[in-house]
Amino acid sequence: MTPLIPDHIVDIFADKPVGIITTVRPDGLLSTNPVAVTLRDGEVWVSTTKDRRKHRNLLVDPRVTLCVLDRNNPNRYVEIRGHAELVDDPDRAVIDAIFHELTGGDRYPFDAPGQERVTIVVHAEQISAPRIPMADDPPLAPDRTDRTD
Amino acid sequence: MTPLIPDHIVDIFADKPVGIITTVRPDGLLSTNPVAVTLRDGEVWVSTTKDRRKHRNLLVDPRVTLCVLDRNNPNRYVEIRGHAELVDDPDRAVIDAIFHELTGGDRYPFDAPGQERVTIVVHAEQISAPRIPMADDPPLAPDRTDRTD
Repeated sequence: MTPLIPDHIVDIFADKPVGIITTVRPDGLLSTNPVAVTLRDGEVWVSTTKDRRKHRNLLVDPRVTLCVLDRNNPNRYVEIRGHAELVDDPDRAVIDAIFHELTGGDRYPFDAPGQERVTIVVHAEQISAPRIPMADDPPLAPDRTDRTD
Repeated sequence: MTPLIPDHIVDIFADKPVGIITTVRPDGLLSTNPVAVTLRDGEVWVSTTKDRRKHRNLLVDPRVTLCVLDRNNPNRYVEIRGHAELVDDPDRAVIDAIFHELTGGDRYPFDAPGQERVTIVVHAEQISAPRIPMADDPPLAPDRTDRTD
């Protein structure tokens, strides 16, 4: 059964969270960088272009982990470990929808001519969302660690 | 030669950045979660305890990547890919120094009795710090993407 994003953390997706995606490079090192994310029917989607490293990595090795942070409190996060399915976005519907969610704009304007959009659909195998008072690692910012549960 | 953190991004370490560390689990999936980081002589250090997953992962597979974000603009980041050296912190000097940097407090108070501190020293093999106007991925938060270089 596919694991679900826990109720206590799912709210972060409604407020422009910070996604960090990790893939495995052909040289064996790990690629980790920030991305925009969107939650669709319980799964996390990321849009990229086919020429980017993360897409090329996933074509060879579909392992992917997303860490999604509350943008106002990085101690509130959910980690989604699993495998990526790559879905073409030929009419740019996904990237434009994500852009709209984040900015209110209609069309993502930053791709170069000819860049092809693809959606990384993260199929979760494991989901981890520890509740951290201030205890798991040192507070990243004291004014942001106000959780006590 | 060890790569250096580029001048244009190194300032983020002076303002409580958000670190995200990735290690490889024994089951092959990737573990990615936020941590506090500190920069020492050009290398990034992370403190953890020996009972944590990230430490147990690194004992088996030293590959590690840190993505360190400007806490006010996640489009400003540096990615450090390499291998971890694990250095015991028996007198807790490293964790207490990190805690002091972040909070002004003298002693990190959140470990359970008996938890042993260890420092993950990230030896970089590759460092990536792309300059992103608003173009690489959709802006994570429009009000935070004010870079134009």
